[in-house]
Amino acid sequence: MQSLLHILRRIDAGDITPAWALAETQEAIAQKETEIGAFVRLANSPRAAEAGPLRGIAVGVKDIIDTADFPTEMGSSIYAGWQPLGDAAIVSALKHAGATVIGKTTTTAFAASDPTTTRNPYNRAHTPGGSSAGSAAAVGGGMLPLALGTQTAGSVIRPASFCGAVAIKPSFRLIPTVGVKCFSWTLDTLGLFAGSVPDLAYALSALTERPDLALGDTSWVPRIGVVVQYFAGEPEAEATKALDHAVRAAETAGATVSTIGLSELFAAAWRAQLTIQNFEARNAFAWEYAERYDDIAPGIRRTLDAAQKIDPAAYDDARRAAHRARRVMGDLFADIDVLLTFSAPGPAPEGLESTGDARFNRLWTLMGMPCVNVPGYVAANGLPVGVQIVAPFGADARALAAAAFLERAL
Amino acid sequence: MQSLLHILRRIDAGDITPAWALAETQEAIAQKETEIGAFVRLANSPRAAEAGPLRGIAVGVKDIIDTADFPTEMGSSIYAGWQPLGDAAIVSALKHAGATVIGKTTTTAFAASDPTTTRNPYNRAHTPGGSSAGSAAAVGGGMLPLALGTQTAGSVIRPASFCGAVAIKPSFRLIPTVGVKCFSWTLDTLGLFAGSVPDLAYALSALTERPDLALGDTSWVPRIGVVVQYFAGEPEAEATKALDHAVRAAETAGATVSTIGLSELFAAAWRAQLTIQNFEARNAFAWEYAERYDDIAPGIRRTLDAAQKIDPAAYDDARRAAHRARRVMGDLFADIDVLLTFSAPGPAPEGLESTGDARFNRLWTLMGMPCVNVPGYVAANGLPVGVQIVAPFGADARALAAAAFLERAL
Repeated sequence: MQSLLHILRRIDAGDITPAWALAETQEAIAQKETEIGAFVRLANSPRAAEAGPLRGIAVGVKDIIDTADFPTEMGSSIYAGWQPLGDAAIVSALKHAGATVIGKTTTTAFAASDPTTTRNPYNRAHTPGGSSAGSAAAVGGGMLPLALGTQTAGSVIRPASFCGAVAIKPSFRLIPTVGVKCFSWTLDTLGLFAGSVPDLAYALSALTERPDLALGDTSWVPRIGVVVQYFAGEPEAEATKALDHAVRAAETAGATVSTIGLSELFAAAWRAQLTIQNFEARNAFAWEYAERYDDIAPGIRRTLDAAQKIDPAAYDDARRAAHRARRVMGDLFADIDVLLTFSAPGPAPEGLESTGDARFNRLWTLMGMPCVNVPGYVAANGLPVGVQIVAPFGADARALAAAAFLERAL
Repeated sequence: MQSLLHILRRIDAGDITPAWALAETQEAIAQKETEIGAFVRLANSPRAAEAGPLRGIAVGVKDIIDTADFPTEMGSSIYAGWQPLGDAAIVSALKHAGATVIGKTTTTAFAASDPTTTRNPYNRAHTPGGSSAGSAAAVGGGMLPLALGTQTAGSVIRPASFCGAVAIKPSFRLIPTVGVKCFSWTLDTLGLFAGSVPDLAYALSALTERPDLALGDTSWVPRIGVVVQYFAGEPEAEATKALDHAVRAAETAGATVSTIGLSELFAAAWRAQLTIQNFEARNAFAWEYAERYDDIAPGIRRTLDAAQKIDPAAYDDARRAAHRARRVMGDLFADIDVLLTFSAPGPAPEGLESTGDARFNRLWTLMGMPCVNVPGYVAANGLPVGVQIVAPFGADARALAAAAFLERAL
């Protein structure tokens, strides 16, 4: 994978210019794009900024995120050629930091479940996951040092795991979603893909102008609580192996690892996520549903069909379930710093028909807690399987520090 | 003012058709629009639906709310002629309920403080308030039976008070803000203006498909707690008179009225509102600020200039202050059903240079609590002064029932 910090160090040292760094990334894209198909559109004549913490860094932007310089097509024929007037807030933040938006990356239709044609960089016969398919595949495949995705259920952490990329879904609204197509206003969260945890922490710190998110002392050893999320069903054997592998590596590196049980309150919240997501989607896509029904991709159309029947009272109940779980979530961290769990049920499934299952991600998205995918295990079929570090709401720095610890340990 | 329920009763009785109802509203607009200037744009050939709970009802939509059938100009030259692809969720809900979007109403630039040219329907030399200037003036002036506004600080309740309209700022996100230009994602709340509390309750119930929001038993008598919001400064004499008038009317009608004190936690939350609002605005308008600075209206540009200096840590502190106040807000309602307070510091100020002050609204917007403006007092200068009913988060039905009680009492 490309390393953002390595690129910046070379620029700082005067070995390369920002423009040269950009050209190198373009060369990597040119070599692999035909095979992977991560992009909807690429910049014609991208220019590198001379200054800024992300100068020379080419970034891929998921195509549900508004860009003034590119159409934003949402993975849907309804928005074919649609040109927003302005940039989303995060795109302005990228430019302000000196990054170059190199292109728009593929997304499932409206960031739901209908697959893209993007292929897994580790095996073209497998899905890269979704909905942030292009961003995950481009970073995992070494085409980009940084990319933006969004997660409403598991659309950042799962494809990152499938494509071997490092990724963070930060605390809810740490990155503003202004200018991002809404699926669920309670859940939609912008996230970042990068080549390593230090790369990720640097980029998140630069984009949010929060120095405390940069990695500090690397001697810190986290107390880790392992959760299996029994309510989400059984993982595949390879996911269990990846988790065991991470636990052993963390223990060897000196971490305390315990097992944490989740009460029925969390199971109820996990179930509530789908109700909240789909009730809000019905409202968010009311125009498309009323006026462009036949042009909505079949998977999300089925979801929206079913969502028409969700009663507002069921939605209110679901929100109360989420609220109850959020109120006691802090108690889990009495004796631990972070949770460790599966990023996905297993390696990327074969075929491009499905983008995989978000069942190990739903709870954390609903809780608004920062999650980091850490790669480090390779399944028997050669595909990567990540594990997920989860920290309390607002403790993004801690999530990143623990992920960096685990990355080093692995 | 026009009465939505009266129009619907005449349609139900077969006295008029929905198309006739629409034509009557168009006639009222034609008579008064030159004087008031509430509209940015009117529909050329509006059509009435034959069915739906809001058939025949013409609605004005504040011009920061996306409409597929009209440009959406945000009160800013930056968006002159800007045509969104789809409707905002609330506009789809209006159409689904059979309402007719009759036009776009004026808004201060980006729903901030730069005044519109709209005039107060009670006195052309006075402001109608803002930011939902056109919607408040059109309903208060009898041009429309229903209109949409938004409130980030006090942009629904204050102009409603100034224009003598009934209005609700419902619980946060009771009405989805998808497709509404974002100022502050923590605060932006869609609201409705109508001619009476029963009109308002009927419309809100129809648009949200929540039958429990319709007014039920009219014999209910609320226990009212009066709050003066000492931290927000002194009201003008006419606002005090309006509040006293409401208290006496409520007591005469049988309500228990007590005085409620607000602890320093609420004062801190009130102060935090501005930090949250402006830090988020800086992010929300990052593209306009970076790319179209000179075209931003001067008032909001000054706000954004100042907001560039807000530290993320100050924003986090402000969010914590809001959270602390939200956690104890429920305690205020131990022995009362609703709060009663000022809607605005006084009647609409003279001149069109200022839209008035939101200081009596900020806290409730930040708390996400439902607020209803109830007119019923007329100042010595002939301008209306409303009072504000506030209920706990999610208790919109209670807010409406108490407002209906007060409206009858007045």
